[in-house]
Amino acid sequence: MQKLKDTLAKIEPLKEEFFQKAQKRLDNLTKPQGSLGRLEDFAKRYVAITENLNPKIQNKFIFTFAGDHGVVEEGISAFPKEVTGQMVLNFIAGGAGVNVLARHVGAEVVVVDIGVAHDFEPTNGLLIRKIARGTQNMSKGPAMSIEEAINAINVGIDIANEYAGGGADIFGTGDMGIGNTTPSSAILAVITGEPVGRITGRGTGIDDQTLERKMGVIEKSISINNPNPKDPLDVLAKLGGFEIAGIAGLIIGAAANRVPTVVDGFISTAGALIATEINPLIKSYIFASHQSAEPGHRIMLERIGLKPMLDLSLKLGEGTGAALGISLVDAGVKILTEMATFGDADVEEAIRTAS
Amino acid sequence: MQKLKDTLAKIEPLKEEFFQKAQKRLDNLTKPQGSLGRLEDFAKRYVAITENLNPKIQNKFIFTFAGDHGVVEEGISAFPKEVTGQMVLNFIAGGAGVNVLARHVGAEVVVVDIGVAHDFEPTNGLLIRKIARGTQNMSKGPAMSIEEAINAINVGIDIANEYAGGGADIFGTGDMGIGNTTPSSAILAVITGEPVGRITGRGTGIDDQTLERKMGVIEKSISINNPNPKDPLDVLAKLGGFEIAGIAGLIIGAAANRVPTVVDGFISTAGALIATEINPLIKSYIFASHQSAEPGHRIMLERIGLKPMLDLSLKLGEGTGAALGISLVDAGVKILTEMATFGDADVEEAIRTAS
Repeated sequence: MQKLKDTLAKIEPLKEEFFQKAQKRLDNLTKPQGSLGRLEDFAKRYVAITENLNPKIQNKFIFTFAGDHGVVEEGISAFPKEVTGQMVLNFIAGGAGVNVLARHVGAEVVVVDIGVAHDFEPTNGLLIRKIARGTQNMSKGPAMSIEEAINAINVGIDIANEYAGGGADIFGTGDMGIGNTTPSSAILAVITGEPVGRITGRGTGIDDQTLERKMGVIEKSISINNPNPKDPLDVLAKLGGFEIAGIAGLIIGAAANRVPTVVDGFISTAGALIATEINPLIKSYIFASHQSAEPGHRIMLERIGLKPMLDLSLKLGEGTGAALGISLVDAGVKILTEMATFGDADVEEAIRTAS
Repeated sequence: MQKLKDTLAKIEPLKEEFFQKAQKRLDNLTKPQGSLGRLEDFAKRYVAITENLNPKIQNKFIFTFAGDHGVVEEGISAFPKEVTGQMVLNFIAGGAGVNVLARHVGAEVVVVDIGVAHDFEPTNGLLIRKIARGTQNMSKGPAMSIEEAINAINVGIDIANEYAGGGADIFGTGDMGIGNTTPSSAILAVITGEPVGRITGRGTGIDDQTLERKMGVIEKSISINNPNPKDPLDVLAKLGGFEIAGIAGLIIGAAANRVPTVVDGFISTAGALIATEINPLIKSYIFASHQSAEPGHRIMLERIGLKPMLDLSLKLGEGTGAALGISLVDAGVKILTEMATFGDADVEEAIRTAS
């Protein structure tokens, strides 16, 4: 608990002066003021988070946290539990969606085994930080103990500290865990009070019957565990997953280190929800990459107060949306730093004299 | 007129077999079917346009067509006419928004002087294809003659032919022309019959008084020229701009050459509107990059039947949105071609056995 407390204590509100300085530069670029819309917002916020007026996004990391879920034995997913570990092997081999999109935007994928029910050989690109071989079945009792939940958050904090110390310029979050829309919907239902029926979706593609069962399992898990909506750690432990806790920890640690983080879809946003419920200041340090096809995602983003960048009906997770979002934040930062200003010799005559 | 007719005659409907073949490969990738949403749609359409099942987007070109507008003398823009030519110099120097975003996505910017009221020295990255030193004031008579409009379309067709012949894999459109939201709104009003008040916006940032004047100028231009809504060439000639005609020509020529084209914002979409009104088949060959902040843009995209990829409140033009859109189409194509399939050795055991 001490590590989490110490990390939270380091998180400060963003300073208005950095927004103003970035705005001043943006307003001096050779374009009508504000004409690059949200790209300019991304740039301003990136500057305010890093407190660097001339940033360059070079070292980009997408952390794909993988964990298994005891609740899968209730038959709530289209895929069997084993796929979690098998997809981890696919990530390591570079053949998954997140690998392709990370390469596309120049980011490195780091896979974190935080709770997969399979033991991996140590290898490049894989961090083995296993808390347990999957969570317990939350429809029969807590998914994790409070201690496990805090340990899983600490995994994320440690990784943020390590990579921030190594010179990372931006993080992306990602997840892999068969069944993990179920805990994400459960967390959302408890924290917002929304009815389960409204915020539960088909995940990677379940049929009507499975969807109905999934909703019933979520209802039962909430009622049996009776988590306290005002205590995000209690909600996380009782209804969460190790990957959701790890993502929450990464986001908390990133904010403490002033590293901007681009959040992926529904599961990653569940992690962001836990983090921002613990400390609302964290909201300013994160970017929502996309609006997922999962129906609860919009409500989750609204609860946090984030507006997604993309709406491409993605529902894969892994960090695929985060990869695309990193590229858009990067685009905004390059607008700030690479465009000619009215003060630049060639352009001064070209435009200032005319306006 | 013969060149336009011949080019239009080459444009065929996309073949269902290529969508099916691409779908088959997508469904064999190591992810739940359809889970990459619109990225998969981009890939399928790219395959169907190019009729290449294993495409690679390497040679990317953004054509920024620049032209001046006689109607600027009516005081409808926040900037004086001279800025058009001055921004062309900024594009050539590499300091404008489109240059930054094109570099970000690995595209080359080609500036086309199709009608700027300034004479440029020949230089790298600039095609001088001037039809005239700006259009006539459309509030007093036709902006162009029919012959000029067709010549401007031919400029776009010629460029599409040249670059397609040189091995281009994708095009983006862009525009520069002080005052050019005015002709774009006028074209939209005539073709859709929408009231001018609903589809006219603030362009690069005019005040209330100028906005009112702009609407009046558009009304007057429509009433004095009385264009035939069923004849896109008549609408283009009477109310258009050289850059809008050039963009229409590029889009027509690209479709004839099976080169996918990513369309930028309001002005580029006006060009796409003319092209698709001339031949509705062209719709399948183009991608809408973004939803502009300009209020008429949504109506224009709906008329064509395109769904934008991004909604970032951009309103700069130049091809800035097209650059970002090119990167997203590229991402979709890479998903198709670079992801592991269930047939790949390492992954077969990993997932097929599990599902």
